[in-house]
Amino acid sequence: MTLSASSRVNLERFWSTIERSAEIGKGREGGLSRLALSDADKEIRDVFVAWCREAGLSVSVDQVGNIFGRREGQDNSLPPVLMGSHLDTQANGGRFDGIVGVLGALETVRTLNDLGHVTRRPIEIVNWTNEEGARFSPPMLASGCFAGTYPLDWAHKRPSDDGATFGEELRRIGYLGEAPVGSRELDAYFELHIEQGPVLDAEKVQVGVVTHAYTSYGFLAEFKGETAHAGPCAMDLRRNALIAAARLLVTVDDLGWDYAATGGKSTGSRLVAWPNKAGIISDWAQAICDVRHDDPRAAAAMAERVRRAIGEAAARAGCSVEILDSWNWGGAIFDPELVSGIRRQAASLGYTHRDLPSQAGHDAYFLARVCPTAMIFTPCRDGITHNNNELATREDIEPGLNVLLHSVIARADRQGVL
Amino acid sequence: MTLSASSRVNLERFWSTIERSAEIGKGREGGLSRLALSDADKEIRDVFVAWCREAGLSVSVDQVGNIFGRREGQDNSLPPVLMGSHLDTQANGGRFDGIVGVLGALETVRTLNDLGHVTRRPIEIVNWTNEEGARFSPPMLASGCFAGTYPLDWAHKRPSDDGATFGEELRRIGYLGEAPVGSRELDAYFELHIEQGPVLDAEKVQVGVVTHAYTSYGFLAEFKGETAHAGPCAMDLRRNALIAAARLLVTVDDLGWDYAATGGKSTGSRLVAWPNKAGIISDWAQAICDVRHDDPRAAAAMAERVRRAIGEAAARAGCSVEILDSWNWGGAIFDPELVSGIRRQAASLGYTHRDLPSQAGHDAYFLARVCPTAMIFTPCRDGITHNNNELATREDIEPGLNVLLHSVIARADRQGVL
Repeated sequence: MTLSASSRVNLERFWSTIERSAEIGKGREGGLSRLALSDADKEIRDVFVAWCREAGLSVSVDQVGNIFGRREGQDNSLPPVLMGSHLDTQANGGRFDGIVGVLGALETVRTLNDLGHVTRRPIEIVNWTNEEGARFSPPMLASGCFAGTYPLDWAHKRPSDDGATFGEELRRIGYLGEAPVGSRELDAYFELHIEQGPVLDAEKVQVGVVTHAYTSYGFLAEFKGETAHAGPCAMDLRRNALIAAARLLVTVDDLGWDYAATGGKSTGSRLVAWPNKAGIISDWAQAICDVRHDDPRAAAAMAERVRRAIGEAAARAGCSVEILDSWNWGGAIFDPELVSGIRRQAASLGYTHRDLPSQAGHDAYFLARVCPTAMIFTPCRDGITHNNNELATREDIEPGLNVLLHSVIARADRQGVL
Repeated sequence: MTLSASSRVNLERFWSTIERSAEIGKGREGGLSRLALSDADKEIRDVFVAWCREAGLSVSVDQVGNIFGRREGQDNSLPPVLMGSHLDTQANGGRFDGIVGVLGALETVRTLNDLGHVTRRPIEIVNWTNEEGARFSPPMLASGCFAGTYPLDWAHKRPSDDGATFGEELRRIGYLGEAPVGSRELDAYFELHIEQGPVLDAEKVQVGVVTHAYTSYGFLAEFKGETAHAGPCAMDLRRNALIAAARLLVTVDDLGWDYAATGGKSTGSRLVAWPNKAGIISDWAQAICDVRHDDPRAAAAMAERVRRAIGEAAARAGCSVEILDSWNWGGAIFDPELVSGIRRQAASLGYTHRDLPSQAGHDAYFLARVCPTAMIFTPCRDGITHNNNELATREDIEPGLNVLLHSVIARADRQGVL
C-alpha cells in the first residue's frame, strides 16, 4: 500500500481499542469512572503503553505523567507533529470523552504503519494526565505544566479528596517519569474530540472544524468562619462558612441565566465544608465555580461579577475569603492555517462539516500557548457528556478519524522548515 | 456524715473527672472531637463504666448503647430517678457540653455514697449515645429510641460519612448491649447542662432554671438531578442537585434573619453532593437545615417556609426532591413540679438563679415524652459552644451540681408513690 487520498483508518481496529478501554474503570451502566492516577488509570496507561510499543513507537513519560509515543520521521531534526488527548474520566464519565482523541492518534500511527509511510517530520501521540480535574484541581493540570503555565512543584502538591497528592499518586502508580516537562519545540498539535455539545448531532454534520474556544474563567474560593451551635448562637454572631459558599454558588448560577440567551453558562460544581454536620456551624468551606461565554468581553464581565460575588457572599455570612486558585482559557487560540487545513481535508474527503467553537476545556487550549494547534470534533448523541449515557457510534467517529489522519500527514509531510 | 441542707458535692473530685475526660478524643486546642461510637467514644465509655462500678453501681447497656448505672434505693419496687446527659461531642466540640451532665450525675452518686444516704427510690445515671448527631443523623438518636420515637431497627441502619452504620459501630466498640430500649417506668429525669447560650454568663447568674424549650424543626432533604458537562450543557437543560441544595440553605439562612429580632434562628448545617467535582454537574445532593423559635407558632411558620423552600429550590434547579427525615421538638415539655423544685433548691442553697428557655436540643426533650423531666443550666463563657473555646470554670459549675444533688435527693426521697 502507498499513501493516497483514498487511504482510510481501520475503523474496526480503532473500535476494538475503544471497547478494550471501556472495560477498565467501569462506572455506572455503560460509563467509566476512571479518575486520574487511580488504579484504573494505571491499568489503561499500561495497556496504552503496550499498544504504543506494538506500533513501534518509542515511549517516554514526563515528570507529570504525560505519556508520549514517538514515530520517527525522515528528518528527525525537525520538531514533531503531536496529537492526542486524555484517558482519564469524570466520576460519572463516558467512554469517549478524551479517549477518542488518544486512541484516534494511536489509530493514525497504526494506519501509517499499514501504509508503510514515513512522514517527513516525526509524529508523536500523547495521553495528558488529569485533564478532567475530577481528582486533582485544576483541570488540564499536566498540559498546563507542559505549556509552562503551572509550575512542576505546585502541580505535584495538588491534593485529592482522598488525601494523596498528585505527585504521590504519580509515583504510586509508576508514572512519575523522568522526561522534562515541555521545554521542547513542537511543529503542531492536533486534538480529536467528541463535541460535548448538541450541534453536530442535531444538524447531522459529520465533522466539526473548531474555530475558537469559549472564553472561560474558573475560581476556587476558600471561606473561613467559626464553629458554633446551630441553636443558641444569635443570627448576627454567626460566621457560617457553608452558607458563604452556598451563597456564592447560587449567585453564580443566577448569573448564568442572565447570559443564557447568548449562550453563556455558569456552574457551581463543588462545595465542601467542615465539620458539615447537623447541630454545628461550619467554620471552613471551599467552592469551585466557573463562567463561560463565546464573547470574550461577556465572559470577562461574568468573571468580574463572580469576583464581586465571592466577596459579597463572604461578607454576608461574616466570613473571610481567599481565592486560592483561578484559571482562564479560550478565545481565538487556534492556528488559522491548521483550521483551514482541517476544513479542506474534510471537504476533499467528502464529509459534511461545519465551523463551530469549543465550549468545554481541552488540553489543546494549553498546547495553543506553545505551538500551532487545532481541534477536530465528532458528533455525540444529544450533546450528552460527563454522564454514563454519553454515546457515539463508530460511524459518528470515522469521519473525524480520517480528517485527523490526512491533516496530520499533510502537516508532517509539508516542505519547508516553518 | 448524714444528709443535710449543708451537704455539698466534692468539687475537686468532680473536676478531676472532667479533666480525665478532656484527655480522651482531643480535638483542636482545649477542645474535644469525640464522635459517637468512635475509638475515643469507646475509651471514655470504658472509663465511665469503671467509675460507675467503683461507685458501687450496677451497669447495664441497652441495644442502642445507652449506659445506665443503678444505685439501689430503700424500695426498689418504685421507679428510679434518672439523671445524665451524653459523653459524645461535635467534631469541633468542647469539654463540657453533655459531659458536665453525665459526670455531674456520677458526682451526685459519689456524694450520696460519702453521705451513706440510701434514697427511698433507686437512682440511675445515664450516658445517652449519639446526642450530637455529628456522626449519625438525627441528633439525640438513642434517647429518641428510648422514648419510643425512633424504631430500633431504623436507628441501627443510620449511616455515617465513613460508611459504617450505627448498629455496626455499636458492635465494633463493644457497646451493643442486651438491655431492652426504654419500655420501663421512670420516676423522673434530671439533666444538668451548660447553658450553651450567653444569658447566665452575661448576667452573672449562677443557676438557670429551664422552664421550657425553643420549638425546633429539622429537615434532611435529598435532591436528584443529572450529571452533565459544566461547559456546553445549556442553562435550561441543567439539573444541578448541588445548586438545589445550596439554594435551600441560602433561603433557610435568609429566613432566620426575618425572625432574628424575636430570637429566632435558622441554620444550614450540612451539604453533601456527588460527584461534587470541577467540570461536572452533580446529580445528587443532601442538605440538613433547622429552624428554632421560642414561640411555637413562629417556629411552625418558619418550618412551613422551609418546606416550601425545599420544593422551590428543587424546582428552580430542575431537580426532584424528597424529605428523607424531619424532626421536631421543644415547647412546654418540662414538668412544672420538678421545675419549681429546682427553683426552690437553688434559692435555699443561696444561689442566684433565673428562669430561661433551652435553645439547643437535649436528650431531656425525648425523656419528657415518657416521664416528668427538668433541666438545670450552668453558665458558660460568652455562650460559646460547639467550639474548642467552650469554657466553664469549676466555680461556674458548682452551684448547678449542688442544685442537682438536692433536687434528685428530694425527688427520690419523697413520700407517696406518685
